[in-house]
Amino acid sequence: MKYVIVGGVAGGATAAARLRRLDEECEIILFEKGDHISYANCGLPYFIGDVISEKKSLLLQTPISFGNRYDVDVRVKNEVVDIDTENKTVNVKNLLNGKEYQEKFDKLILSPGAQPIIPPLVGIKSERIFTLRNVSDTDRIKLQAVTQFNQLKEVVVIGAGFIGLEMVENLHALGYHITVIEKARQVMPNVDSSIAAAVQKELKNHNVTLLLNHEVKSFETEADRIRIDVGKVQKIEADFVILSIGVKANTKLAEAAGLAIGQHGIQVNEYLQTSNSDIYALGDAIEFPHPLSGIPYCNFLAGPANRQARICADNLVLENKIKYNGSVATAIAKIFNLTVGSTGLSERYLQQHNIDYLTSITHPFSHATYYPGAKQMTIKINFSPESGQLLGAQVVGEEGVDKRLDLLASVVSRQGNIFDLIDIEHAYAPPYSSAKDPVAYAGYVAENILTKRVVPMQWHELKAILAQNNWQDEYFLLDVRSAMEVKNGMIEGAVNYPVDELREFVDDIPQDKKIIVYCAVGMRGYIASRILMQSGFNQVYNLSGGYKTYQLMKN
Amino acid sequence: MKYVIVGGVAGGATAAARLRRLDEECEIILFEKGDHISYANCGLPYFIGDVISEKKSLLLQTPISFGNRYDVDVRVKNEVVDIDTENKTVNVKNLLNGKEYQEKFDKLILSPGAQPIIPPLVGIKSERIFTLRNVSDTDRIKLQAVTQFNQLKEVVVIGAGFIGLEMVENLHALGYHITVIEKARQVMPNVDSSIAAAVQKELKNHNVTLLLNHEVKSFETEADRIRIDVGKVQKIEADFVILSIGVKANTKLAEAAGLAIGQHGIQVNEYLQTSNSDIYALGDAIEFPHPLSGIPYCNFLAGPANRQARICADNLVLENKIKYNGSVATAIAKIFNLTVGSTGLSERYLQQHNIDYLTSITHPFSHATYYPGAKQMTIKINFSPESGQLLGAQVVGEEGVDKRLDLLASVVSRQGNIFDLIDIEHAYAPPYSSAKDPVAYAGYVAENILTKRVVPMQWHELKAILAQNNWQDEYFLLDVRSAMEVKNGMIEGAVNYPVDELREFVDDIPQDKKIIVYCAVGMRGYIASRILMQSGFNQVYNLSGGYKTYQLMKN
Repeated sequence: MKYVIVGGVAGGATAAARLRRLDEECEIILFEKGDHISYANCGLPYFIGDVISEKKSLLLQTPISFGNRYDVDVRVKNEVVDIDTENKTVNVKNLLNGKEYQEKFDKLILSPGAQPIIPPLVGIKSERIFTLRNVSDTDRIKLQAVTQFNQLKEVVVIGAGFIGLEMVENLHALGYHITVIEKARQVMPNVDSSIAAAVQKELKNHNVTLLLNHEVKSFETEADRIRIDVGKVQKIEADFVILSIGVKANTKLAEAAGLAIGQHGIQVNEYLQTSNSDIYALGDAIEFPHPLSGIPYCNFLAGPANRQARICADNLVLENKIKYNGSVATAIAKIFNLTVGSTGLSERYLQQHNIDYLTSITHPFSHATYYPGAKQMTIKINFSPESGQLLGAQVVGEEGVDKRLDLLASVVSRQGNIFDLIDIEHAYAPPYSSAKDPVAYAGYVAENILTKRVVPMQWHELKAILAQNNWQDEYFLLDVRSAMEVKNGMIEGAVNYPVDELREFVDDIPQDKKIIVYCAVGMRGYIASRILMQSGFNQVYNLSGGYKTYQLMKN
Repeated sequence: MKYVIVGGVAGGATAAARLRRLDEECEIILFEKGDHISYANCGLPYFIGDVISEKKSLLLQTPISFGNRYDVDVRVKNEVVDIDTENKTVNVKNLLNGKEYQEKFDKLILSPGAQPIIPPLVGIKSERIFTLRNVSDTDRIKLQAVTQFNQLKEVVVIGAGFIGLEMVENLHALGYHITVIEKARQVMPNVDSSIAAAVQKELKNHNVTLLLNHEVKSFETEADRIRIDVGKVQKIEADFVILSIGVKANTKLAEAAGLAIGQHGIQVNEYLQTSNSDIYALGDAIEFPHPLSGIPYCNFLAGPANRQARICADNLVLENKIKYNGSVATAIAKIFNLTVGSTGLSERYLQQHNIDYLTSITHPFSHATYYPGAKQMTIKINFSPESGQLLGAQVVGEEGVDKRLDLLASVVSRQGNIFDLIDIEHAYAPPYSSAKDPVAYAGYVAENILTKRVVPMQWHELKAILAQNNWQDEYFLLDVRSAMEVKNGMIEGAVNYPVDELREFVDDIPQDKKIIVYCAVGMRGYIASRILMQSGFNQVYNLSGGYKTYQLMKN
């Protein structure tokens, strides 16, 4: 059996290694148009920022070492330019000498990856505009950022997605001031605004300038700088620009070969087989239905690509035995001192696709508060109002975020519900968690919402109410924090009755109004809600995430 | 409705709070024989070690603040001494004035906890022997350790369970030399020897003396010291002794009331109802079947107690609506720089109960090795040889251990299998994980074992083989590490062919012998196994956990 693999970065190399472990006899040829295979592409921003000091640590395998270990014919600088599905051959261009040649295959694996989106703007073709995708890009950026003379010490990063913000952190480490230009009203379009707001605060704390809701019109490159025209404000000057507005699947080769292409990427079945049964595909180039919504998308993530590579190899050798279940797009990033991540469907996605949901925001601590170093995190979960199915979750904080995100992702991806969050058995000792872990806590709050023991009000709902004239005719805003906490500020128009004294003052609260209760994070507001709801008040709302979320979001 | 709760530490207080949130009208009386309710008992060792500097941070609620918030009649220093199930009353002794009185109940919740086991040894009644269970114990130990004159600066800790070792760390922080005396051949009887060995190494690195396989015979207290007789060696002298050989459920009150008691604790049904339908019980005092083995046990853990408290309250108000699923005994501890934890069934438990299992040991890194700070951990999993069900898991390492343990626990507790480990979708960026997370890696290795793509050999099996004379007549021991690694030592009698060159030398390996392959941790050994198994070798074994595990365990 002769396998030909197109693309040797992560997915292609992993598939080759697994093929060999399963079948010592087969022939495997791995084509890669770049210089390197199996390199650490997720580490590239950190090499630029000198967090990773040695380039060789990014190159996990050389073509030779990989070839030796797995008995694979690795051909870098060789680009597959054409697939002849009828004769089962590929045309390959040797990029070193420009010559083309043919290679036969019995089975073909496509792992061509994705490429940065480059908008057709005036001045976009500039040696001062960089995209980051591979080792060569990294070398170019590093050369510019570290070695070249950069008079302004200014960089503009266009696009505030995960990669863009990782670049912000790493260029900041090199001493640059950074301006981030983002088309959306927030950074990180994958997460909801209340989570993004925490990231924005962290960026501002590190002196990063944010131009949200801004679009670049054009670029103008001069000898020692580049000017970026964003229309509304004056032109920004920078030493160079990082363009990271997203990537698109490399589908050209597959399309030319007549394989079925979806809206975003190469179409595959659950065995990762393309519309041609001898050709499999994996990684950034494929689209696959989201397990929850059923809507195909490209996830552009390394974890799923790794999983797919192994499944591809297994299905080739064992004849379609393993099904790929899809990915719920679990992603994480370190942004200065924060960790932020998401899994499943965001509020924005749910709204766009008319999927009903409820939301809960909590601010639990990473471990027992009495043990040193506990940090408050924010967990936002979206869940079905009927079944309680967990549709999505987002977490931001300084410690223990990755752990909670992984647990939440495990429930989202097995299509579990909020009761599963409660039932997760956590390893607890004071340095690691609390007797009630943040994930369980999020589940308990959601359970109370789902069973209507408490009615949440979201920060934007309260904001809309308070923007009305005479809102006090209809609503009574009740702050149940302690007198001490209230001294440092409360929401305008609120009345303070600390929760521990609330029962004494129940008669002072107007029975004919809707009561909006809030505390610092939502816990005491919930207790107060319970007291009021059982004391004859029919419409009681508890501010989700409390004063903490409202303060962060109100502007 | 009038609820009476016996015991106000963790479970009792949580149940009271939940009862109140569900029912604003009911009467709740909370009896606690000690001085404090709802305190942070898991934090007590850290207060002794000054890691937690303020005692008040341990006292999460005072009786008054708790009573105010939840409208609960909290009675500390009041001990329930008798239950009259017929008349539905309790007899209560006021420990301040010694007077007894009666209190009626409609429903009773028992949360009496557990107490330290104190063996009937000569000299055990000494003011220099301490157990640690509550705030008063903590005060006594702290007074002794910090304030008293301790000439020797020596402490003996008897019992090397989780609490004992937490005390070792905290007394070490106060400048004591510590000798640990443990009856078993290893520390931490809950984990298997290969995991315990890493902890033992860490203890020795901190100058802790370990007397494993030793039993205390007697104590002799003098004016300024205590002598501990352990038979085999000379008497040990210490300033004081921490006795932490375990706890037992407080079942006396329940037993006297005629409630059904099991082998270890109060028996309850899945609604946490005792044999008397008006009496519920929770926490350390109850036993409950292990979800995997079906065998009742007491788990003595805070997380499950918290869960049970809420379930109890819900079932009292909502009439047995919520089932308790039991706990798979997920536990974790920080021991100096190490984190060690376990979930599910250990190898020892599986052997004792004649449950078939396979084992796999892996040594993955906590995050991408090219990103700074990655630490190697050890994951040991036990799984069913038929179904692949994950029966238990243990993890030890310096970073990211708690995250992996929680994920493993979630699979164990929902009775998932090793394929579920592979399918977990991890949040990956270089600071947090690898494209193939340690949990997925453990799953992949287990899959290869289960599908017989590789046959593991455990360290003790190899040790037994190498102890035989003439083992080389039957076996060929093949080291597939690089020439560089081999320079620092290899297993005696092994022959070195680096994996990347193995295909060239296959003919040099004897076809008529059983081949035992090893590398540093097992990964290259697996690749080599695959090469050999597909080259006509019928009996090939890969050393589980590789040289790393073998070196740690061979002595």
